[in-house]
Amino acid sequence: MTDQYSVNPALLRPFSPPPRLLMGPGPITVDPRVLRAMSAQLVGQYDPAMTQCMNETMALYRGVFKTKNQWTLLVDGTSRAGIEAVLISLIEPGDKILVPVFGRFGHLLCEIAERCGAEVHKIHKEWGEVFTPDEIETAIKQVQPKVLAIVQGDTSTTMLQPLDHLGEICARHGVLFYSDGTASIGGNPFETDKWQLDAVSVGLQKCLCGPSGSAPITLSEKAVATIRKRRHIEAGIRTDNHIAGSGRRIASNYFDLGMIMDYWGEERLNHHTEATTMLYGARECARILLEEGVENAIERHRIHGKAMAQGLAAMNLKLFGDQSNKMHNVVGVYIPEGVAGEAVRSSMLNDFGIEIGTSFGPLHGKIWRIGTMGYNARKDAVLQTLTALEAVLRRAGHSQTANAGVDTAMTIYTQEGY
Amino acid sequence: MTDQYSVNPALLRPFSPPPRLLMGPGPITVDPRVLRAMSAQLVGQYDPAMTQCMNETMALYRGVFKTKNQWTLLVDGTSRAGIEAVLISLIEPGDKILVPVFGRFGHLLCEIAERCGAEVHKIHKEWGEVFTPDEIETAIKQVQPKVLAIVQGDTSTTMLQPLDHLGEICARHGVLFYSDGTASIGGNPFETDKWQLDAVSVGLQKCLCGPSGSAPITLSEKAVATIRKRRHIEAGIRTDNHIAGSGRRIASNYFDLGMIMDYWGEERLNHHTEATTMLYGARECARILLEEGVENAIERHRIHGKAMAQGLAAMNLKLFGDQSNKMHNVVGVYIPEGVAGEAVRSSMLNDFGIEIGTSFGPLHGKIWRIGTMGYNARKDAVLQTLTALEAVLRRAGHSQTANAGVDTAMTIYTQEGY
Repeated sequence: MTDQYSVNPALLRPFSPPPRLLMGPGPITVDPRVLRAMSAQLVGQYDPAMTQCMNETMALYRGVFKTKNQWTLLVDGTSRAGIEAVLISLIEPGDKILVPVFGRFGHLLCEIAERCGAEVHKIHKEWGEVFTPDEIETAIKQVQPKVLAIVQGDTSTTMLQPLDHLGEICARHGVLFYSDGTASIGGNPFETDKWQLDAVSVGLQKCLCGPSGSAPITLSEKAVATIRKRRHIEAGIRTDNHIAGSGRRIASNYFDLGMIMDYWGEERLNHHTEATTMLYGARECARILLEEGVENAIERHRIHGKAMAQGLAAMNLKLFGDQSNKMHNVVGVYIPEGVAGEAVRSSMLNDFGIEIGTSFGPLHGKIWRIGTMGYNARKDAVLQTLTALEAVLRRAGHSQTANAGVDTAMTIYTQEGY
Repeated sequence: MTDQYSVNPALLRPFSPPPRLLMGPGPITVDPRVLRAMSAQLVGQYDPAMTQCMNETMALYRGVFKTKNQWTLLVDGTSRAGIEAVLISLIEPGDKILVPVFGRFGHLLCEIAERCGAEVHKIHKEWGEVFTPDEIETAIKQVQPKVLAIVQGDTSTTMLQPLDHLGEICARHGVLFYSDGTASIGGNPFETDKWQLDAVSVGLQKCLCGPSGSAPITLSEKAVATIRKRRHIEAGIRTDNHIAGSGRRIASNYFDLGMIMDYWGEERLNHHTEATTMLYGARECARILLEEGVENAIERHRIHGKAMAQGLAAMNLKLFGDQSNKMHNVVGVYIPEGVAGEAVRSSMLNDFGIEIGTSFGPLHGKIWRIGTMGYNARKDAVLQTLTALEAVLRRAGHSQTANAGVDTAMTIYTQEGY
């Protein structure tokens, strides 16, 4: 049949992506086990096998988050879907929120909170630094917010904000404590219960070895109580047995965590149609992390991150930011004087098949960001990246001692017993 | 190392779903080609191969939607994410929206629109019927809404709302015309441009043969102009070159279609991290539909849907609703007097590995819903379902003529030249 909307026949070929070693700030190369898990066939939305898979996924993420929180589940979307679900469910218009901003993703928390109608209070750090607990407590005293929202690892600056004292401060001031751990979890310590977090959201595409598209979250009892006050059941599936809350209805259906809990909970009230393939992937990401052991995975990220950073430094490159607060899994490195940053990235990608990252905002054009995370926190990935980058930088005229990067990394591997 | 949050070792086994033939109202068994496409490894977010894949996906969905709309792209979430993205981007608080409700998903449109702050006006039909264009035009004249929002196919009732006269009515009254075609597209005619639709959202998990988790949408120039008035660029990536719109900021970051267009467009402004695996899947769903030919796929759904419905009717079962307005891809059938509906579904699932659907709201406990859609709009799937259901119904005491279902279906296949 003829069809005026028929597409170019060339598009009817299956897509076949080129091989890439993804050594940027994420997304990174997915662990093949996760891709295999995602290739499993679907079961129905309320099949006992499906609800078992959902329950197991909840249990596995309790291990990832280090929490006993019952409400540990997936939001069906990318990591910022998890952020928005948490903020729009916790915040009512006019509520005060404090956001310490030390990079792009702090701005994102503000942006999302503003759209939730929050009164957003920000404190700022230069990109490359983090906050002290005292600075945050001072701001909490001034602002008296309902929620403290802070990212743990901000890939835009490579910094890792220490969270270990903040929960105690929040509890003392009656503040809900929320953190986004997308960039850091699995590669750096994260302790939901020990650090007294009330809400955490993450994504799969960094140290958890998966693709973007599912956002695991966990909620404390306090957070759940706040959300339950705003409970609402959809028309069309509501019955007389369902009791609504007294609070203001959450301003999103898709991100209404009360409804999402009712879907993941025993009631299994229909909400969205769970993205089963992403569920399979998310479950496998948690499974392989716990199989390795969370502490072992963090240690692996520490060692490969150190080998990469010191290898780069040995190539006459200057590292960005306060190294004592750097995430294990990504390092910023200044683009050397006289070297065209994008030409180097382009040669890395097109000649060597290796992706390294550019930067945002104030760091745009100034630093590259190089990741060692998830499946690519591996010796071969680190050494291939260092040798390729040395070759590209040499051809770009950068002055460096030959072989220094790879030899330094090798020395670190020997020291660390790798 | 010991770890108080360590999970049950039984959970560390990979998940292995049981084999199921999904003959409910969706999600359905995924075409294996889609699963294979989704098992491809990732490329970086701005890799030329990635942006090419995104552009190709846009082009392919123009073929699926039958539109020349430039802004034809994916929202990263389930089909209701696409609905919410369209509504929250089009509607400002206080705007009037008209929703003709003829099933559960009409209620959903109202629910989402209410949360967007819209003044929602509803008109209702009994479940099992659809609206005439006159009924809708009368309501448009009374309400004078900014947006008409209506689902095309509502799986809760199996009905297909004719849309072909509504675009002209909307254009005449200056109303934006939005439809959700999740349940129907690919299995029933859908003509975005011919029917003058301004916005359409769908999902993959019905006739498009994919898993839930990606929501293709398309927007007319009029819809885009409405959204562009509310343009906003995130702090952290904003530069002096970016001009914001004058309208009220969209009340969601994740669903801000202006930002999502800036991400899919030439500017490639960072928003979310595209869910690459879902993108691969969505691209393949469109590719296989266009390879088959949209008209051929619709015809296939018509034939298998007819074989199923008439096969069921021949088994002394009464079909639900106005059959002249039924979707091709799902049929409702009354649970016979004296038969326990859930016991039948349970035997179908546990003894035969075949899932058929239950119902919501006023139809709960009264009808089963049986799908013939996407990959499962196939002769073997239809015949297996009919023979299995005959066996289960026979054992449940239902009075029927032996072999009538499968013989009737076979006759239809012969008549249709299958």
